[in-house]
Amino acid sequence: MARGAKIYEGKAKILYEGPEPGTIIQFFKDDATAFNAEKKDVIDGKGVLNNRFCEHIMTGLNALGLPTHFIRRLNAREQLCHKVEIVPLEVIIRNVAAGSMAKRLGLEEGYQLSRPLVEFSFKEDSLGDPLVAEEHIEVMQWATRHELDAMIDMAFRVNDYLSGMMHGIGIKLVDFKIEFGRQFDEDGNMTLLLADEISPDSCRLWDIETGRKLDKDVFRRDLGNLTDAYSEVARRLNILPKGGSKTGPKLVK
Amino acid sequence: MARGAKIYEGKAKILYEGPEPGTIIQFFKDDATAFNAEKKDVIDGKGVLNNRFCEHIMTGLNALGLPTHFIRRLNAREQLCHKVEIVPLEVIIRNVAAGSMAKRLGLEEGYQLSRPLVEFSFKEDSLGDPLVAEEHIEVMQWATRHELDAMIDMAFRVNDYLSGMMHGIGIKLVDFKIEFGRQFDEDGNMTLLLADEISPDSCRLWDIETGRKLDKDVFRRDLGNLTDAYSEVARRLNILPKGGSKTGPKLVK
Ligand SMILES: Nc1ncnc2c1ncn2[C@@H]1O[C@H](COP(=O)(O)OP(=O)(O)O)[C@@H](O)[C@H]1O
Ligand SMILES: Nc1ncnc2c1ncn2[C@@H]1O[C@H](COP(=O)(O)OP(=O)(O)O)[C@@H](O)[C@H]1O
Ligand SMILES: [Mg+2]
Ligand SMILES: [Mg+2]
Repeated sequence: MARGAKIYEGKAKILYEGPEPGTIIQFFKDDATAFNAEKKDVIDGKGVLNNRFCEHIMTGLNALGLPTHFIRRLNAREQLCHKVEIVPLEVIIRNVAAGSMAKRLGLEEGYQLSRPLVEFSFKEDSLGDPLVAEEHIEVMQWATRHELDAMIDMAFRVNDYLSGMMHGIGIKLVDFKIEFGRQFDEDGNMTLLLADEISPDSCRLWDIETGRKLDKDVFRRDLGNLTDAYSEVARRLNILPKGGSKTGPKLVK
Repeated sequence: MARGAKIYEGKAKILYEGPEPGTIIQFFKDDATAFNAEKKDVIDGKGVLNNRFCEHIMTGLNALGLPTHFIRRLNAREQLCHKVEIVPLEVIIRNVAAGSMAKRLGLEEGYQLSRPLVEFSFKEDSLGDPLVAEEHIEVMQWATRHELDAMIDMAFRVNDYLSGMMHGIGIKLVDFKIEFGRQFDEDGNMTLLLADEISPDSCRLWDIETGRKLDKDVFRRDLGNLTDAYSEVARRLNILPKGGSKTGPKLVK
């Protein structure tokens, strides 16, 4: 499938115009960044694995009636998606305190929360994606109350689904980040879709038995080989690419 | 009135046991701090003025049926209050973006918000009083949903009252911070009271005509004499102490 013009190059993916109006192609790069892109590297095979994770998870969510932007995987590094207008928020669900939240509130990493928590941050790299409350979202009109309620409902559904999937393969889902977008039809009707990606880049995944980290913290905190960690998750989910994780066209810069 | 043992010395006030059980005495110091006490000074007369502001505002709120900890002013620097168990939150209402919020969200200071915004921060100096959402408060059980709703209602009422008072004397109420506490009766029944203080230390007050800052930003940003600014507000409210702002016993360290 011929991809169209490049729309946007982000930290981990490139978006191209899709073959039909209202579609885009997401190309998964091997680039890894952390701490608002202060730390950077190229991780051989990461893009191929993440494309698979997204396919696996988004397909499952679509089947449960949770609307996502995902249409189908095209090849090792590319997937066809509905084009959306991204809501400028990162929606985070946490089951266990870790990372920025543990630090900010003075909690031990690993502290079991009394119930799953939903957090929002304003998606703006230049401000370091600051934490915001629902209040800020409403007052700044980044999303309507109605959209917020829909995003919260969907985020908790994703948490249920993904917690189950991970528990099934001996992994604790600690937290994850998702993004939503608005899809408009010809009559101007809007549907809120789960967009962007769900992969070990955007989750914290801890092996239940050993506590081994199987997510991007391996890169953030220099805990070993990132592709090995992601491959371990893919292997357990039985979605490890046959030819290894390195198949598919490399991005020519 | 004889004050009892010292209970707590904070950045701006000292609490002593009151004459009867369930009461405390708040002593207003002249100490000024900013940026989590990184910047410090002693501002002659500030404590005397803030004691007056609190009396004026808390009395008005009590009269409107909004329950506060304030009982009565005892002398230039002291006031008698109900003792409460402080909810570990700073409740902030903003009408206009300024200070930390403007910076965090990349807004111009002075940006008029689409409606008044309520913010919470976790009152913990060692963490820099981090911003939290209602979600964090519920999940961390710092306050119940019921208490949160009551605090939000009271905070917006304080905004209405204080906006009116300030507008009446040519001043724009930009934002303010309040604290709440739980008062328990002999039967263990709990009442949520507005506690701590409301003064130019805890508000942003801009002169409507000139834009002159009449609040603690004068100290934070080295904009001139802080006592002059607070005295200007007290003068307009007709509560400037007769003997000048410097009356009353000085704190012996
Ligand atoms: N279906 C979609 N339509 C339009 N934009 C999308 C869609 N899915 C994701 N995006 C956006 O495309 C970008 C994906 O690339 P990424 O490398 O994650 O970028 P960033 O560095 O901005 O996070 C993100 O900005 C994301 O919000
Ligand atoms: N009625 C009250 N009962 C008990 N504690 C109170 C009451 N009113 C205020 N406080 C607490 O007393 C302290 C007042 O002193 P302050 O100098 O503001 O301290 P801090 O540096 O902790 O802000 C605050 O910690 C405040 O929460
Ligand atoms: Mg991204
Ligand atoms: Mg204080």
